[in-house]
Amino acid sequence: MDSDNVVRIFDTTLRDGEQSPGATLSSAEKLEIARQLARLGVDIIEAGFPAASPDDMAAVQRIAREVGTADGPIICGLARVVDSDIRASWEGVREAAKPRIHTFLGTSDIHLQYQTGLTRAEGLEAVRKGVSLARSLCEDVEFSPMDAGRTDKAYLVEVCALAIQCGATTLNIPDTVGYVTPEEWQETISSLIAETPGGGPGSGVIWSVHCHNDLGLATANTLAGVLGGARQVEVTLNGIGERAGNTSLEEVVMAIRTRPQFYHVTTNIESRELIKTSRMVSNYTGLAVQANKAIVGRNAFAHEAGIHQDGVLKEASTYEIMVPEDVGLASSELVLGKHSGRHALRARLRELGYEIDDEELRQVFARFKDLADAKKTVTDADLEALVHDQVQGVQEFFHLVDIQVSCGTMGLPTATVKLACEDGSVVVQPAVGTGPVDACYKAIDAVVEAPNTLLEYSVHSVTEGIDAVGEVTVRISPEGEDRSFGGYGADDDIIVASVRAYLAALNRMLAVTGAGGRTPEGRVATVSLQ
Amino acid sequence: MDSDNVVRIFDTTLRDGEQSPGATLSSAEKLEIARQLARLGVDIIEAGFPAASPDDMAAVQRIAREVGTADGPIICGLARVVDSDIRASWEGVREAAKPRIHTFLGTSDIHLQYQTGLTRAEGLEAVRKGVSLARSLCEDVEFSPMDAGRTDKAYLVEVCALAIQCGATTLNIPDTVGYVTPEEWQETISSLIAETPGGGPGSGVIWSVHCHNDLGLATANTLAGVLGGARQVEVTLNGIGERAGNTSLEEVVMAIRTRPQFYHVTTNIESRELIKTSRMVSNYTGLAVQANKAIVGRNAFAHEAGIHQDGVLKEASTYEIMVPEDVGLASSELVLGKHSGRHALRARLRELGYEIDDEELRQVFARFKDLADAKKTVTDADLEALVHDQVQGVQEFFHLVDIQVSCGTMGLPTATVKLACEDGSVVVQPAVGTGPVDACYKAIDAVVEAPNTLLEYSVHSVTEGIDAVGEVTVRISPEGEDRSFGGYGADDDIIVASVRAYLAALNRMLAVTGAGGRTPEGRVATVSLQ
Repeated sequence: MDSDNVVRIFDTTLRDGEQSPGATLSSAEKLEIARQLARLGVDIIEAGFPAASPDDMAAVQRIAREVGTADGPIICGLARVVDSDIRASWEGVREAAKPRIHTFLGTSDIHLQYQTGLTRAEGLEAVRKGVSLARSLCEDVEFSPMDAGRTDKAYLVEVCALAIQCGATTLNIPDTVGYVTPEEWQETISSLIAETPGGGPGSGVIWSVHCHNDLGLATANTLAGVLGGARQVEVTLNGIGERAGNTSLEEVVMAIRTRPQFYHVTTNIESRELIKTSRMVSNYTGLAVQANKAIVGRNAFAHEAGIHQDGVLKEASTYEIMVPEDVGLASSELVLGKHSGRHALRARLRELGYEIDDEELRQVFARFKDLADAKKTVTDADLEALVHDQVQGVQEFFHLVDIQVSCGTMGLPTATVKLACEDGSVVVQPAVGTGPVDACYKAIDAVVEAPNTLLEYSVHSVTEGIDAVGEVTVRISPEGEDRSFGGYGADDDIIVASVRAYLAALNRMLAVTGAGGRTPEGRVATVSLQ
Repeated sequence: MDSDNVVRIFDTTLRDGEQSPGATLSSAEKLEIARQLARLGVDIIEAGFPAASPDDMAAVQRIAREVGTADGPIICGLARVVDSDIRASWEGVREAAKPRIHTFLGTSDIHLQYQTGLTRAEGLEAVRKGVSLARSLCEDVEFSPMDAGRTDKAYLVEVCALAIQCGATTLNIPDTVGYVTPEEWQETISSLIAETPGGGPGSGVIWSVHCHNDLGLATANTLAGVLGGARQVEVTLNGIGERAGNTSLEEVVMAIRTRPQFYHVTTNIESRELIKTSRMVSNYTGLAVQANKAIVGRNAFAHEAGIHQDGVLKEASTYEIMVPEDVGLASSELVLGKHSGRHALRARLRELGYEIDDEELRQVFARFKDLADAKKTVTDADLEALVHDQVQGVQEFFHLVDIQVSCGTMGLPTATVKLACEDGSVVVQPAVGTGPVDACYKAIDAVVEAPNTLLEYSVHSVTEGIDAVGEVTVRISPEGEDRSFGGYGADDDIIVASVRAYLAALNRMLAVTGAGGRTPEGRVATVSLQ
């Protein structure tokens, strides 16, 4: 197929997606997701914003090294049009076989005025310097005029032409605030391509769109951009991102795939990996996907009404425009039982896309055996929950040894926790609360002494059945701060899972803030942008 | 404003939305939602499908009587183009001040062939008879050619012209399988309006669109329909509905409101009621809204990244195209404390949109006092959780008296439940499980003897803080059946909330199936369509 008909999938789950409140990912989690994105077949992974923090830099470097192989995706790092950002971005991605620097400047008057304090002329100069520097370091340079949707049209053309002249090979047009409509956006993109000197057909420049979902139009706007001539789309799994999020990768890919006679383009995505990737991102970020989410929601392929079921039984095409297998929804997920060995477990985890080291395998196997004893069958989803719980990659300042809880309608909910602390001590602490989870968390608080607010607490069962593994995600905020930290726990006892999740969030918070009674060495706080 | 510029909001949350797997609502819940929809200002409420079951009929009749007042919305009932369905629909809505009958037939070849087994000519005859009968009963008649997106164009025009000739006043064009694109859909609607004899401008016929979200395009397609000339849109709160759901009311309304210079239309919606209505629908259906859902998601107005927060502080319009107050997101939700009396509680509940009777108030007040003792502050969200738990309107075959649980990492999770049964007996039953919830559910199962599968179990905290009220929703399916039943529970002890939710689901299942050891009188199973 002619490459003009290929829409490049630029995944920014690890950069713009990670900016969802509470979605902070550890380096280990980012690496796992990046590996899965490569299996999914995305063309470009935006791995992070290296200048934002040493943590971001380290994660981007590791992804560049381990996932950015010769036959792997392009690895990209974000940078403001600022010397230090651009050099940091290059430090992050240079070890990838195919590195890219992505640099941006807000070009609407409102962004120029309130964000950077530049005049339009100064904005042009910043673009000239930034893009030229990036191109001197890296052959593959992307430039984004942020808030293009509200940028003066003539100025936008001027900025884009300048970026191309200075060496940008991809021009990405973001609707940063999610304001445009599909009709407007198609016109914007097609006229930009036509009017920008050096950017027309045959120029080799790839145009890209980056949309936000504030009015529920991100998917439609992105597809309208493709109709207008864009051949790269910037998307995230499950549409995660700030506010109402970014464009959903899975929706754009499946619309293109389901309507080839309308869009006349194709992507390199292996759609059977969509569900698995969606689930991994949901698990690691703690951002649940709603039941009626298109493509990847639990109900996306489910029918309830009598007439519909009848129609589906008679002829699937009556109500289905896609088949569940296309997106990787397996009909059966049953895999392992209590007699399965360590080798079978590792083999299955590898099939599921998880590469874990020997020590992690040992721990996961021990918990798998406990689970297999308690449950009749252990499914892929159960396994994923256990692996995720084990692979959070968070330093454990406090480790759960044991808990014991008593509660109900008749008495005072009471919990006793036994925690192993980083200094080698083991503390046993009882507490009473309004419920069993409250009691556990109060007992932990009494040991850890890191004042925080619980912003969010949620549980869901991983599989069907009363004896299913429960997944708990919590989000906490250090006292008096806006930042938040997420934690995840999985266990067939939801109280135990709740305690694991809270400890994971606390450990993550302590790693960054250094707050708390048993203070570890302080570290630089992570900040992320755009 | 000229009425040609008013887009009528046809809410089908209670009909198409309720067809989401597991979303089955009780009559009491439907009535509460209908009252809130009236406050939201929807123009038409599709209250149900009266022919589907006596339950559906009763709910529609009650909504017609109590919400369909002279200054209230039009109340509509669905019917296939079948004599008995249409008469049932009329029975359902006739007591409303402004009743409507909505009748439909699948008109694509694939629907004709597999659904009804009619030829195209027989389809026309069915429409003639059905619409004529409806119009003889009711002045306001809507007709939908189901699967219009895949219906032969000439035949679609013929069907629509016939429906108008027989008295249909609203023509609704559904994209039943969520297959179309915005560009196609605008063309389809505008050409249908232009080409259908008797349907053009000045005819008085209102054209309507009904879209599904399988490819993530429902909102864009609906707005494209408006651009094509549609002046009614069929939508649901939170976009709930079968598979990936229907078009989201909130997205369409806020897009129209945010972009008046583009769409040149208006709606009668009071947008400040959006969040409240969304939350009520989410609570009552048990269908959680994801954090990054446009307009009504928890993060829709939240910013995390440093640069964005900075921009927002400097000038809200840098990153916000809507203000949170527009959709009813209150800055402070703090309301009542332990010294608040029954009168204050009732007044506050009324402000929140809940009309509850004296007995319900007595019970809610007792639980409010318990909660106010345990927590420092009781918020609106806490109150809504308690009211919802109390107002499920389900017959209680089994009632929770007490539970007592012991669990942790060290022992065998054990629960003892004490249940009051419908026959007046009180049973105490212990059980051991893989976790505390499993133990409780096993103990309940031993008493209730109604074999079922737990399809889903989820918990989330209603408000911030470790001592927040936890909401639990469960969905169960009777053994060997595809139907599912939801239950909801709220308590500051999540184990107690879990037990309440499971009992609510079981009671609901028993009311319909009549299964279980202590069998109530059997009832007709509900079925719903389209």
